Amino acid sequence: MAKIPKNSKFVLCLVFSMIFNLLFIINLYVGGGWNLSWSSRAAEEAEAVAAISCSGHGRAYLDGLVLDDEKQPLCECNTCYSGPDCSQFIPNCAADADEGDPLFLEPFWIQHAANSAVLVAGWHRMSYSYNDKTVISKVLEKHIRKLHSLVGNAVTEDRFIIFGTGSTQVISAAVHALSPDNASSPARVVASIPYYSLYREQTDYFESMHFKFEGDASPWINTTNTSSTNLIEFVTSPNNPDGQLNKAVLHGPYVKAIHDLAYYWPHFTPIPAPADEDLMTFTLSKLTGHAGTRFGWAVIKKKSVYERMTMHMELNTMGVSRDSQLRALKLLKVILEGKGREIFEFGYKTMKARWEILNQTLSLSNRFSLQKIPPQYCTFFQEFRESSPAYAWLKCEREEEKDCYAVLKAANIIGRRGYMFSAEDRYVRLSMIKSRDDFDALIERLKELVSEEESVVKGT
Amino acid sequence: MAKIPKNSKFVLCLVFSMIFNLLFIINLYVGGGWNLSWSSRAAEEAEAVAAISCSGHGRAYLDGLVLDDEKQPLCECNTCYSGPDCSQFIPNCAADADEGDPLFLEPFWIQHAANSAVLVAGWHRMSYSYNDKTVISKVLEKHIRKLHSLVGNAVTEDRFIIFGTGSTQVISAAVHALSPDNASSPARVVASIPYYSLYREQTDYFESMHFKFEGDASPWINTTNTSSTNLIEFVTSPNNPDGQLNKAVLHGPYVKAIHDLAYYWPHFTPIPAPADEDLMTFTLSKLTGHAGTRFGWAVIKKKSVYERMTMHMELNTMGVSRDSQLRALKLLKVILEGKGREIFEFGYKTMKARWEILNQTLSLSNRFSLQKIPPQYCTFFQEFRESSPAYAWLKCEREEEKDCYAVLKAANIIGRRGYMFSAEDRYVRLSMIKSRDDFDALIERLKELVSEEESVVKGT
Repeated sequence: MAKIPKNSKFVLCLVFSMIFNLLFIINLYVGGGWNLSWSSRAAEEAEAVAAISCSGHGRAYLDGLVLDDEKQPLCECNTCYSGPDCSQFIPNCAADADEGDPLFLEPFWIQHAANSAVLVAGWHRMSYSYNDKTVISKVLEKHIRKLHSLVGNAVTEDRFIIFGTGSTQVISAAVHALSPDNASSPARVVASIPYYSLYREQTDYFESMHFKFEGDASPWINTTNTSSTNLIEFVTSPNNPDGQLNKAVLHGPYVKAIHDLAYYWPHFTPIPAPADEDLMTFTLSKLTGHAGTRFGWAVIKKKSVYERMTMHMELNTMGVSRDSQLRALKLLKVILEGKGREIFEFGYKTMKARWEILNQTLSLSNRFSLQKIPPQYCTFFQEFRESSPAYAWLKCEREEEKDCYAVLKAANIIGRRGYMFSAEDRYVRLSMIKSRDDFDALIERLKELVSEEESVVKGT
Repeated sequence: MAKIPKNSKFVLCLVFSMIFNLLFIINLYVGGGWNLSWSSRAAEEAEAVAAISCSGHGRAYLDGLVLDDEKQPLCECNTCYSGPDCSQFIPNCAADADEGDPLFLEPFWIQHAANSAVLVAGWHRMSYSYNDKTVISKVLEKHIRKLHSLVGNAVTEDRFIIFGTGSTQVISAAVHALSPDNASSPARVVASIPYYSLYREQTDYFESMHFKFEGDASPWINTTNTSSTNLIEFVTSPNNPDGQLNKAVLHGPYVKAIHDLAYYWPHFTPIPAPADEDLMTFTLSKLTGHAGTRFGWAVIKKKSVYERMTMHMELNTMGVSRDSQLRALKLLKVILEGKGREIFEFGYKTMKARWEILNQTLSLSNRFSLQKIPPQYCTFFQEFRESSPAYAWLKCEREEEKDCYAVLKAANIIGRRGYMFSAEDRYVRLSMIKSRDDFDALIERLKELVSEEESVVKGT
C-alpha cells in the first residue's frame, strides 16, 4: 500500500472538515433551525409526537394519554385496529359510519405539515379582546371574505360576519336573533324533512317565550300569506343527510330563513353560483376538517340581526377562543396560498372516489338504494361535476325491512337512523367523511351484506 | 514578517474548520434545532413576531394586522402609548380600569417562554371527540384535579368535572342544569349585592319557562323555610367586585347554589380551606391570565347535574375547542412543574404591591375610600397573608357625589359604575389586574385627583 504523504493527510482532513462545515450550514439554513431559542422545545415536542409510529392506523397527540412509566403519549387507534402501535387488525369489527367526523381531510394536512403548523407563545392573545375591542379577529374575517370570493360560494360584500364556537353556536345565535322580541306567540322553527337533528334538539333545549321548534316545514307552505305566525326555516344546502341543494320552501312577510351552508364547498357539491341569502352559516369542520377546533361563522345582511347575534356570542361564551381563531387563520392561509385548488381537488377526489366505490358496492343490490344527485356546472372547477356527497342516504327497499338501522346493525354497520332526521326508519345515513379505515370497514361490511343477498338470489 | 510554512497554513485552516464544526454542533444541540423539519417554519414565525420591538408598551401577534406593503404584523399598543413601536407616550390619556382583563400575568408567561409554548400540528385533534368518545380531554381533567389538590382550594375527589368555553358558558350551563324541568313556576336566580352583572344579563337573555333572574338574594332569606319557590343563588368568593369571601345566604330544601370561585386562587386571596360545595366554577382567565383562550370548568357533586351540564355543552357548542384544551394543559403543566410556587408568588407579589400602592395613593383622601378585607391564614403559603384583591371597590364619600363614576370620569379615569353590580352609583369598581401600563396610568390619574383634594384643603 502506497504511503500517503503527510501533507495529503492534512488536505484530506481539511476537505472532510470543510464538507462537514458545508453540511452543517445547509442543514441549518434549509432546516431553518438557525435562530430558534425559546420555541425549539415546543417544536421538538411536536415533532417527537408526530414521529410516533401508529402504523398508519392511529395517531399520537401532544395531549394524549401518557402511562406513568412511559414518557410519550400512547397511540390512539382507528376503528378496527388495536395494539400499542395500532398494527393489529380486529377482524369482523363493527363499521362505524355514524358521526360526521371529517377526518377524510387529515392526510391533506399531514402533506402540508410545514405550512399548517402554528406555534402559540405562552403570552399569545391573553386579553378578552383584540386591539379594536371586539372579540373577532379582523384579519381572520378578511381571510374568510377572500375565501368565499375565491370559491364563489357566497356573497360577502356589504355583509356582516360573526364567529361562533362551531356552527352549532352560530345557528343557536341565529334562532335567538331572528325571533321577535315581543310577539304574542313564539316564532315557529321549521325545516324540510329529512333534516339535521341538532335543529330540533338545540331549539327544544333553549326553548323560550320567543321561539319553539315545530318540525316539518311543509304544512306551513300554504299558510304564509294568510297567517301572521312568525316562522324561521332552516334551509340546509347541500342537505344533511341527503346532499340535495335545498331551497327555502316558505316565503312571506313573516318568514325568515337560516341557510346552513356547512357543506357548500367543492369537496361535496358543484358550486352553481354564490349564495346570497340574508343569513348564511358555515363551519371550519366541513371546510378544512377541523371539527375539534370549534369554529363557525355567519354571513349576515341585516345590521340588527348581526348585532343581536354578536350579543348572543358575548353573553353565551364571550366570543370564540382566540386560539381557535389563530388556528383557523393559519389553515385558511394554506388554502388561499394554493388558490383553493389543492384542498378542493383533494377533497373532491377523495369524496368522489368513495361515492363511486359505494355505488359500485351496492350496484348489484335490490335490497338497498342510494340517493341520486344530478351533476351540475361547478363555477369553481369550471366544468360539469358529478356529486360527491358527505353522506349516503341509504334506503332499505324491501317492504318488510322498515327498520333499516337494525338491518345494518345486524350486519355490523352502525349508521344513523332515519328517525333522527325526522324521516322514516327505512332510511339510514352513512357517513362518508370519516377516516380511510372507517370507510374501508364500511365497504367491507356492505360487500358481505350484498354478497349474502346474491347468494340468496342464486340459491332460489 | 516570518513566512508561515505551507504545512502550518493547512493546520491553521483545519483548526478553524474544526472549531466551526464544533460551534455548529454546540449550536445545534444546545439550540435544539438538530432534528427540526416541518415544525421549524412555525417556530421561526413565532420567534420573528416575538422579536418585534414594541418598546415594552405593546405587543405584536402572529394574527396581528399586517399592512399590505409590510411583511410583519403591527405593534398593538397599550393604553396611553402609540406610534409604530408604541414608544410615544400619550400625555393625559384616560386611565382605563374598566375590564377585568388579567394581563398582570403576561410577564410571567414571557419569563416562561420555552415551557409554555405549544406547537399545534395541522392535523392535531381534527375529530369531534377524544379517543374515549367524549369532548373532554381526560389528561387535562387529571391536571385540573392535581392543581386543586396542590393549591388546596377545592375538593375534587369523587366529583365530576366539566369544561366550558370560559366560565361564562359554565355558569349558564349551571343555571340551566339546576332549574327544575317541570315546576309550575320558574326557579328564581338571585345573588347578594354587589354582584357580577353577567349573572343578570345572561340569565335575562336566556330566560325560559324554567328560570328567571330575580336580583337581590336578601329578601328571600326569611322565606326559604316556608316557601316552595325554587331558588338558585350565585355565591361569588372572593366576590366580584369587592373581594370578600362570601358565603351562601340562602339555605333550605328548595335552594341550590352556584359557587363562582373564579378568583379563589392565591394571587387574590388567602386560601383558608378547600371549598367543598355542590357546584363550583373556575376559569383559566383568572388563574393563568388567559382570558382569550375561553376555558372554564366546574366541579360538581351530583351526577344528574353533571349530566345536564354535559348536555348543555354539547347542544350549545359541542364542547370546548380542543385547541383551548391543549393550551390549558400546557399552561397547567408549567404551573405544576413549579409546584404552583412560581406563578402564585408572582401573582400575589404583583397584586399585593398594586393594592399597597393604591391604598397609599388614597391614604390622604377623605373623598374616596376602599374596601377592607381582613388578613387570613393561607394554607397554600402556610402563613397569614394580607388581601390582594383583583378589584378596588371605591366609594365616593362626599354626600353630594352620588355618581362616583362621573367623578372619576371627569378626572380621566374609566371605572365600572356601581349600578352595573346592582349597587349604589356611589361605588365604582377599578380593575387592578390589567397591564402594568394600565395600572400606572390609573395611579397617575388618582394621584392628580387626590392632590386636587389636598390643594383645596390647603386653600381653605
